[in-house]
Amino acid sequence: MKASELAKLLGGTLEGEDAEIVACGGLEEARAGDLSFCKDPKHVKLVESTKASAVLLPPDWDKGAPCAVIRVADPNRACMAAAKMFAPAEPERKPGVHPTAIIGPDVKLGEGVHVGAYTVIEKGAEIGDGAIVEAQVFIGEGCKVGDRTHIYPQVTLREGTIVGKDCIFHCGVRLGGDGYGFNNGRREDGSVYIEKIPQLGIVEIGDGVEIGSNTTIDRARIGRTYIGPMTKIDNLVQIGHNVKVKGYSGLIAQSGVAGSTEIGYGCLIWAQAGISGHIKIADGVQVGPQAGVPQSLDGSLKYVIGAPAMSMKDLAAITLAPRMIQKIKGEIKELKAALAAK
Amino acid sequence: MKASELAKLLGGTLEGEDAEIVACGGLEEARAGDLSFCKDPKHVKLVESTKASAVLLPPDWDKGAPCAVIRVADPNRACMAAAKMFAPAEPERKPGVHPTAIIGPDVKLGEGVHVGAYTVIEKGAEIGDGAIVEAQVFIGEGCKVGDRTHIYPQVTLREGTIVGKDCIFHCGVRLGGDGYGFNNGRREDGSVYIEKIPQLGIVEIGDGVEIGSNTTIDRARIGRTYIGPMTKIDNLVQIGHNVKVKGYSGLIAQSGVAGSTEIGYGCLIWAQAGISGHIKIADGVQVGPQAGVPQSLDGSLKYVIGAPAMSMKDLAAITLAPRMIQKIKGEIKELKAALAAK
Amino acid sequence: MKASELAKLLGGTLEGEDAEIVACGGLEEARAGDLSFCKDPKHVKLVESTKASAVLLPPDWDKGAPCAVIRVADPNRACMAAAKMFAPAEPERKPGVHPTAIIGPDVKLGEGVHVGAYTVIEKGAEIGDGAIVEAQVFIGEGCKVGDRTHIYPQVTLREGTIVGKDCIFHCGVRLGGDGYGFNNGRREDGSVYIEKIPQLGIVEIGDGVEIGSNTTIDRARIGRTYIGPMTKIDNLVQIGHNVKVKGYSGLIAQSGVAGSTEIGYGCLIWAQAGISGHIKIADGVQVGPQAGVPQSLDGSLKYVIGAPAMSMKDLAAITLAPRMIQKIKGEIKELKAALAAK
Repeated sequence: MKASELAKLLGGTLEGEDAEIVACGGLEEARAGDLSFCKDPKHVKLVESTKASAVLLPPDWDKGAPCAVIRVADPNRACMAAAKMFAPAEPERKPGVHPTAIIGPDVKLGEGVHVGAYTVIEKGAEIGDGAIVEAQVFIGEGCKVGDRTHIYPQVTLREGTIVGKDCIFHCGVRLGGDGYGFNNGRREDGSVYIEKIPQLGIVEIGDGVEIGSNTTIDRARIGRTYIGPMTKIDNLVQIGHNVKVKGYSGLIAQSGVAGSTEIGYGCLIWAQAGISGHIKIADGVQVGPQAGVPQSLDGSLKYVIGAPAMSMKDLAAITLAPRMIQKIKGEIKELKAALAAK
Repeated sequence: MKASELAKLLGGTLEGEDAEIVACGGLEEARAGDLSFCKDPKHVKLVESTKASAVLLPPDWDKGAPCAVIRVADPNRACMAAAKMFAPAEPERKPGVHPTAIIGPDVKLGEGVHVGAYTVIEKGAEIGDGAIVEAQVFIGEGCKVGDRTHIYPQVTLREGTIVGKDCIFHCGVRLGGDGYGFNNGRREDGSVYIEKIPQLGIVEIGDGVEIGSNTTIDRARIGRTYIGPMTKIDNLVQIGHNVKVKGYSGLIAQSGVAGSTEIGYGCLIWAQAGISGHIKIADGVQVGPQAGVPQSLDGSLKYVIGAPAMSMKDLAAITLAPRMIQKIKGEIKELKAALAAK
Repeated sequence: MKASELAKLLGGTLEGEDAEIVACGGLEEARAGDLSFCKDPKHVKLVESTKASAVLLPPDWDKGAPCAVIRVADPNRACMAAAKMFAPAEPERKPGVHPTAIIGPDVKLGEGVHVGAYTVIEKGAEIGDGAIVEAQVFIGEGCKVGDRTHIYPQVTLREGTIVGKDCIFHCGVRLGGDGYGFNNGRREDGSVYIEKIPQLGIVEIGDGVEIGSNTTIDRARIGRTYIGPMTKIDNLVQIGHNVKVKGYSGLIAQSGVAGSTEIGYGCLIWAQAGISGHIKIADGVQVGPQAGVPQSLDGSLKYVIGAPAMSMKDLAAITLAPRMIQKIKGEIKELKAALAAK
């Protein structure tokens, strides 16, 4: 699209070359053909060095730009609007079942459901109104999927999984796999045994939950592994059996929660953090990136970091220990000298 | 099911309201409609606050309960029995090949094998008696899968993978991907090259191995990446090329083992631990959660933790360093004062 | 194959029993039926204890072997040659589209493209000459895949993904999933809201990129998540939205890079390392295993380790702190005694 046309659509005015614009991007990542944006004069250096072909700037910007300028009242908002124009068209998922989808007996499909190619929905499953089940998905026996939930390709839901309304599951999500549970020990004759503990429960997902690509959530041993409403889970996260995430929490990429642990409301578990089994994290607690939490957190610390998890201050004290030790060594040397001089 | 009916099936007696019971659950996670259980009077507070509609209690329990009570001789065992009644029916996987499965030339299917919808089994693969290969699985050329092994949907086995008897592979398991191997350097003209090293080996899995969802095990560069019998691997675990896990070991979620490392018999690698390449972990060693093991462990330490991995005592000493330093500072102050007073 | 036949093919001479050889393997992992190799007399103990049925040794080896010996000029090279003979045949992926593949409208397939069974390629996608798209793959609307790129089974490319030439994507790779992005806060009435931020950008992959099994790369919020040429990514790696990896870098298994971060040319991110969002890693920097990088690295440190990431020397100083403290305690004791004696 020509920059002039874009300026018109965004309600702005073009200054400079009427370049061809093909995409949007931040000032630093932009290339020729990109539209970028800047609102704040303090980022003037980024504007000066941008490779974008055009940049959205506010009316009072007087610092120039190395490319075409489109002046608009609100550059951020205009860039979002432009990004929508350039975004890949969201694929249409019309109501209907693809002829290659395999729908088992007694499956209930709600109004306007979309089921994609090569998807398998097994006996007795129920899919709510307006739900989208894309291609190559597996939905096991007796699963329930709520209204308007969107399941991207190659997700698997093992039998009995219950999913709320308005959820989004990205590609490769695995719900309801057997939890890790074994009895082991030695028999009277001294030989070792490892015995699988039946995993008889299910996974239950509340309304408005989003789950990222290749994340895994195990079924309960007994009862339910529960992910409460509005929880947002990133990619490659592991949730063990019988975990309970109350709701309105975030779990960032590659974090893990071991079996039977409870995560309170409004928690944020940062990337690569690990939380032990059979403990409780109080409402609103944040667990920092790569933190390891061996014990329950009662909320007296709002943010923990390190392994074992501690306050920022305590972690800083450990990091500073070598410096303190150097200082102490100096003082001891002085003391020795002073003592010798007495 | 009515609580009264359940009591009868479990050989117990009902006290209180004849509630409708739909599932089982622990005392804390239980909701209305759930059956829970308690054996030990020391958990009386959990019983008092449970939201279950009925609770299994031993004959001599005299502390009451806020819901219906079913008295049974062994509440734990009765709860397991009840959990089986409420568990989602295990989907039937009858012998036979789904008409949409694509079976390549010279594939050998044993007696009673189940092959699910849209599964692809390539040339020359062999599937043992009673094995279950569920829907949407990919089994590459010349793979061998042992008797009674159960492969859940959307697993991929690259060509040449060998799998023992009685294994269980959960959804999204990836066996036999190319290991990470590149030669790189600079050419005489100064330009950089990165060259793929052919990955010519295979993955071999022993009998009774269970592998969790989305776990990845790379094929060997030469020879075999080997997972010995009865090894239990959790979700999202990474096993590099030419790793050898002797057997009877556990690898918990999100742990990783780098190339050519050997894990002895009966080891336990806890969640998110990482083990470097080309080292050996002696039989029976436990590697704690998030530990990082840079060097071989000869078994003189039975449990390591931290990064670099060390004894619990050594890690505690580091954690306590700031406190020790504070104490030392106090002593130095006293010494200075005492010295000044002389 | 008989050892004598193998010796002939490798241009060597057999000494000892003419065993049947079925595979190759390192000295330690080899079993009966395996061919192994040794070049260097310093590994004589490994030769003495090998379980291989034959071993490739140089002409001047005079330390014997517990099995048949094939003498060759270059044992390493000969073993690679033998490994190729024993490797599972690389499955043939002939040009052509499997009849079960679903090819959407306006899809452009280049010359000699292979499309496997049950693969879905949606509207307007373009696949370059000689590309291999194996079975059960999902390629979304408008994706572009470059010449000779090889996509293994069960990979998903969400709409708009752009992939260069000569790439290799292993099973379960997920490109273009929505990034983790939410606005949250409290409404005037005190209630909490969590609102999805539209993820309008794409993923763009340069030429010669290899991506390991079950790795996930998120689409940009606006613009592109970019993986530059010749980048090699291992299994289970997470790359957040708007990340830019310039090129010629390696990211080892289970590492993660948070949103909008830039990784320079020729970097190496070791296993399980985590890199925060919105920072820059300078060209050529190595981030050690399990390191956590909270801030930009300008290249003044070529290698960082620990969390927060620091130099090897600084990490060692922390690890040694308890020992230093013990020493200091001794010195203080001595000082006290000396002072008392004055």
